[in-house]
Amino acid sequence: MSGGDARKLVSLEGGPVTGAAAGKVWLVGAGPGDPDLLTVKALRLLQMADVVVHDRLTPPELLTLARSDARLIDVGKRKSRHTLPQDDINQLLVALGLEGLTVVRLKGGDPFVFGRGGEELLALREAGVQAEVVPGVTSGLAAAAGAGVPLTHRGLAQAVTFVTGHAAVKNGEAGEPELAEPNLDWPVLSRPNHTLVVYMGVTTAHLLAQHLIDAGRAASTPVLIVENASRAEERRVLTRLAELPKAAAGLDGPALLVIGEVAALAEVEPLIGSAVQAERRPA
Amino acid sequence: MSGGDARKLVSLEGGPVTGAAAGKVWLVGAGPGDPDLLTVKALRLLQMADVVVHDRLTPPELLTLARSDARLIDVGKRKSRHTLPQDDINQLLVALGLEGLTVVRLKGGDPFVFGRGGEELLALREAGVQAEVVPGVTSGLAAAAGAGVPLTHRGLAQAVTFVTGHAAVKNGEAGEPELAEPNLDWPVLSRPNHTLVVYMGVTTAHLLAQHLIDAGRAASTPVLIVENASRAEERRVLTRLAELPKAAAGLDGPALLVIGEVAALAEVEPLIGSAVQAERRPA
Repeated sequence: MSGGDARKLVSLEGGPVTGAAAGKVWLVGAGPGDPDLLTVKALRLLQMADVVVHDRLTPPELLTLARSDARLIDVGKRKSRHTLPQDDINQLLVALGLEGLTVVRLKGGDPFVFGRGGEELLALREAGVQAEVVPGVTSGLAAAAGAGVPLTHRGLAQAVTFVTGHAAVKNGEAGEPELAEPNLDWPVLSRPNHTLVVYMGVTTAHLLAQHLIDAGRAASTPVLIVENASRAEERRVLTRLAELPKAAAGLDGPALLVIGEVAALAEVEPLIGSAVQAERRPA
Repeated sequence: MSGGDARKLVSLEGGPVTGAAAGKVWLVGAGPGDPDLLTVKALRLLQMADVVVHDRLTPPELLTLARSDARLIDVGKRKSRHTLPQDDINQLLVALGLEGLTVVRLKGGDPFVFGRGGEELLALREAGVQAEVVPGVTSGLAAAAGAGVPLTHRGLAQAVTFVTGHAAVKNGEAGEPELAEPNLDWPVLSRPNHTLVVYMGVTTAHLLAQHLIDAGRAASTPVLIVENASRAEERRVLTRLAELPKAAAGLDGPALLVIGEVAALAEVEPLIGSAVQAERRPA
């Protein structure tokens, strides 16, 4: 959205017309973690922002690219514990924008692929705060590129679907946060020749594997697990759907799964029998 | 893949062991067109390459970022006419790599999302040429960001699928190239609460709309058409599945479709009755 679009939007939506000192909030895709995979635009905005609002998992190397006098605000969420609820993040962004500040809301990967960027954008629109979204390299693409696994490939995959392994977080009876079971359209995700990329899929890997096999996906379907895609500590494990629960146990970094025939093309040691092979990326 | 991986790969695959003068081919995602949406890594590689192999649709602004003495090779493909068949492109990359050159194979968007990067990578692997893939912002992400349409959104879309509108190109009886009908899993793509991004979907828009409606997707499902995503000449049209064929007629630039409930959030003039609204991006 350009400045012209934003002004029109404000009048369409009936929000306050912002004056000369109006702030602007940029919802910026930070890419998968490697600062080299920031876009040129994201880098420039980071270097310009008055305030950078980021998550717990944002690599420190990215934050050092901000202006030395920029205010850094961590609204980090843990997998099963919200440090700051989404509504509070939305309101924080609105307040900063209304203060007249140039705000970069840095989001891992792409803001619109499991980034809840839509909720932040709608809150900003509603409050009449100028906002613009900058796309980023979503981690599924970085994981695939790093491993040499094409997500679409002639004869193996004519489509690719991105889902998340845990759709929601709910509070258990004891007030303890607990992970909701992914509630996905399993028959759809179980078709062959269709690559499935599961974000945050390690914690619920046993459920994912069971549901997909029950819905008809072959137990022998190759699965690539990529932990910390694009980062120095990236780790790749190649396994099969039936053995996914075992392979996923013990991983604790942010990880995603690439499920489908293409995963067999991954650049890790070849599978020997049913053994699970892991490769550590050279530092 | 790091240099260490590549050396291991060469020996595993039994290809020629390349010497000190060995070249390297980088399959680089160029992003959607706006040079600002190149990654920092892609920009640096472009500025370093001896040879840049690009497609017909590569924006000239991107090519000016190459070294002034770099060799630029256009292997551009038209929608229905191959300037250079894929096998020839593969062999060209292999030959350049074996010559010891540093080659950037620039691919629109991301190399592994409908970029046929997998075929190029496999050819390079087979020939023992060192290769590395650099992910990019695929155009679906740029189109969504530009229009303010989250591809996943609480309550509206818990998954997003990327497909291509024409799976293959075949030669007609008169020797004229003709577009093959997309052969997709229509029932799968017709589920609600699932965003569908169709690359190169304009030419076959009438078939897509018919198949999706026949398979059960509501005729009223919002569809955003984005032509030239991220470029100065970007154009957005918001319509509905039933009216997609009419809306797509007359578009001739590279375009993609975002089909699903989220498309209604697009920043274009609201739909009035069944009228199709278009917005030209300010220059």
